[in-house]
Amino acid sequence: MKKLELDLKPCDGFFNVREYDKKVEQAYSKVHELFSGTGRGNEYTGWLNLPLETNKKQIKDIKATAGRLRENSDYIINIGIGGSYLGTKAVYDFISPKSEGPEILYAGNTISGTQMKDLMDKIRDKDVSLCVVSKSGTTTEPAIAFRILEGFIKERYGVKAKERIVGITDAKKGAVKVLCDEMGYDSFVIPDNIGGRYSVLTPVGLVPLAASGVDIDELVAGAADMASYSKNLPNDATMYAAMRNLLLDGGKTIEIMAVYEESLRFFTEWWKQLFGESEGKEGKGIFPASVIFSADLHSMGQYIQEGNRNIFETVINIKNPPFDMKIPDTGQDSDGLAYLAGKTMNYVNETAMLATINAHRKGGVPNILINLEDQSGYSIGQLIYFFEFSCAVSGYLLGVNPFDQPGVEAYKTEMFKMLGKPGF
Amino acid sequence: MKKLELDLKPCDGFFNVREYDKKVEQAYSKVHELFSGTGRGNEYTGWLNLPLETNKKQIKDIKATAGRLRENSDYIINIGIGGSYLGTKAVYDFISPKSEGPEILYAGNTISGTQMKDLMDKIRDKDVSLCVVSKSGTTTEPAIAFRILEGFIKERYGVKAKERIVGITDAKKGAVKVLCDEMGYDSFVIPDNIGGRYSVLTPVGLVPLAASGVDIDELVAGAADMASYSKNLPNDATMYAAMRNLLLDGGKTIEIMAVYEESLRFFTEWWKQLFGESEGKEGKGIFPASVIFSADLHSMGQYIQEGNRNIFETVINIKNPPFDMKIPDTGQDSDGLAYLAGKTMNYVNETAMLATINAHRKGGVPNILINLEDQSGYSIGQLIYFFEFSCAVSGYLLGVNPFDQPGVEAYKTEMFKMLGKPGF
Repeated sequence: MKKLELDLKPCDGFFNVREYDKKVEQAYSKVHELFSGTGRGNEYTGWLNLPLETNKKQIKDIKATAGRLRENSDYIINIGIGGSYLGTKAVYDFISPKSEGPEILYAGNTISGTQMKDLMDKIRDKDVSLCVVSKSGTTTEPAIAFRILEGFIKERYGVKAKERIVGITDAKKGAVKVLCDEMGYDSFVIPDNIGGRYSVLTPVGLVPLAASGVDIDELVAGAADMASYSKNLPNDATMYAAMRNLLLDGGKTIEIMAVYEESLRFFTEWWKQLFGESEGKEGKGIFPASVIFSADLHSMGQYIQEGNRNIFETVINIKNPPFDMKIPDTGQDSDGLAYLAGKTMNYVNETAMLATINAHRKGGVPNILINLEDQSGYSIGQLIYFFEFSCAVSGYLLGVNPFDQPGVEAYKTEMFKMLGKPGF
Repeated sequence: MKKLELDLKPCDGFFNVREYDKKVEQAYSKVHELFSGTGRGNEYTGWLNLPLETNKKQIKDIKATAGRLRENSDYIINIGIGGSYLGTKAVYDFISPKSEGPEILYAGNTISGTQMKDLMDKIRDKDVSLCVVSKSGTTTEPAIAFRILEGFIKERYGVKAKERIVGITDAKKGAVKVLCDEMGYDSFVIPDNIGGRYSVLTPVGLVPLAASGVDIDELVAGAADMASYSKNLPNDATMYAAMRNLLLDGGKTIEIMAVYEESLRFFTEWWKQLFGESEGKEGKGIFPASVIFSADLHSMGQYIQEGNRNIFETVINIKNPPFDMKIPDTGQDSDGLAYLAGKTMNYVNETAMLATINAHRKGGVPNILINLEDQSGYSIGQLIYFFEFSCAVSGYLLGVNPFDQPGVEAYKTEMFKMLGKPGF
């Protein structure tokens, strides 16, 4: 396999080698806890072997339903919030070239009436199907969207509505499960031992992605190869976990994910949930932020170069982007670009990346570089598993349970009180 | 005028009142420096009276050119990076309802060959015009995009190309100015005393926005009213500047802008440049980050509620969003939503906002609330000026020059060396 490559060299000079060795040793013991199921929250480590255990029967079932949605839909509407849409959007936006399949739209990740109205305008004269992703079926945002969109589908398609609604939910209980059983909607299971932010390689991501035409075999294969590789030590994910905790010990409290392709914008959002929700607790955690370069070198670049030195960067580089363009020779040099005539944009973009790493490092910002082969499902499958694994190890190193999210209820409880929900 | 409202109450308990009074007093003296032109970087305070001085002649000239572009284009392509596109995109995405005018696309804010290719595919069979926004005309990203797009326009439209290209650039010098004079392209001036991140209310923003059908009179009127209001003390922008510096003194090194409408996504990006680039220097600065709620309550919500207590939030609330939808009564309650049947989504969204402020405050995160009247040009004009003014005062309080960006050159210098640019 062509594995993603982790490059920690641009961190040189920002840490003590003896302390790094110590941190790596600690990380190794955390990996053992993870595999032996003795760490905190071990009831939620189903993702650990998931890509290796995904079998043909499961994929076949997903493809059967997905194929039907794909055939009869202009749009697939994914109803879900947090981990119930971010992984799907991260993968869908990344894959290039896109299939001819239906575009995925998103609902139930907002309470904005304007966004809901915009969506209804967009689908008015189109054929649509719904993937409703919710363990309980009672989360406010997706539940509101589902009320509206199920009504729309039923009104438009009558008895054939059931061919267009798929539930991805609990195996046995919850509103979506009950509804699917009652109405005859297809349903797929979100495993009990996998939390939302770790769920993209379960039916949560696989069903809508397959419906849109993404090759989910490739996606799972990339993750599976990374899972096999990560069974041994040393491995890249463990080193990344060790390094970021070492940098935190040195006062680097903010990690900025920097990418050079717009296609990775929502991957950075998925990553922010993964690390922010896993580590941000008990007053701890590295604050995850993101930038899209080179655009944001002209907005956040100044801060990163010379601001408060409490930051480090993790850069994702795509070695072989899907398309490229040549910089034209215009026969003149008033724009100072003649020296680049005939060169390709991707060559300049990659040079900008290497130059920025140098500049920021010299400015006091340690950099971690991750090289990806291309914009395929296989590559992002690797990247997803890489971060899932490293997040678990990193959370253990930090001393928290990386698999719970006790703080997410706080705003809901306040909201239910104010809205007068029965029982609050 | 209906002014935006600043609410600092959700900061109560996070600061010492005597220290607040002291900080406000310091802020007042900084406002005097700003108006008297005695502060650092005072040669770049042209934005201060700009909206009050924008005259009918200037607006008429802009509208004449913009009207022509608007009539003959399906798309307006804005070529520019940093302050040469973020303000335009922030305003364009915000305004609702949209005009029937051409959509604005963006180029020259990336070096990605894939993004350039996607753009060329999109415009292949469309009529397009270019607004090229660059003081020097030699910034790498926009210069590359302009080479490609000017070629495209010339090839397609021949001698009529010049009706479709507009330069927004230096009054006298630089590659774009020279080119416009040579080729007979319309050109508009970026004033010498206004930096990129402060330029959205100059032709930089006004030309492409007017071309797309945005009512720029409204936009300027909102800013002008805020400018008049801010001439006296106390004013909201000064109080905001004082409060965020006080919170920084108390260890809050990260400011998160939280919004509840997707339409504000790029406003948060504009704001991040404004504050990040103005304050992130000399090892100082509050790190600016952003979230789109309620979506991101299910990703970054956990961290904000319970992670490292080095954060505060600034929330933008739109009191009257442009559209709304009712939550349907489905005659059942399996989703636990019956208590909301008949209520509107915007009511629930606003309640979620108030509840989240409460929850985060209780979790140790001070909140600053800014209420906007609606999604009009007038409202965002106010908001833009509010932040421009407060950023200047805040930078002075922090002890930096809020109008320079010495660190932005660092990556360019490294890049030019690696690319072999003559002279490097």
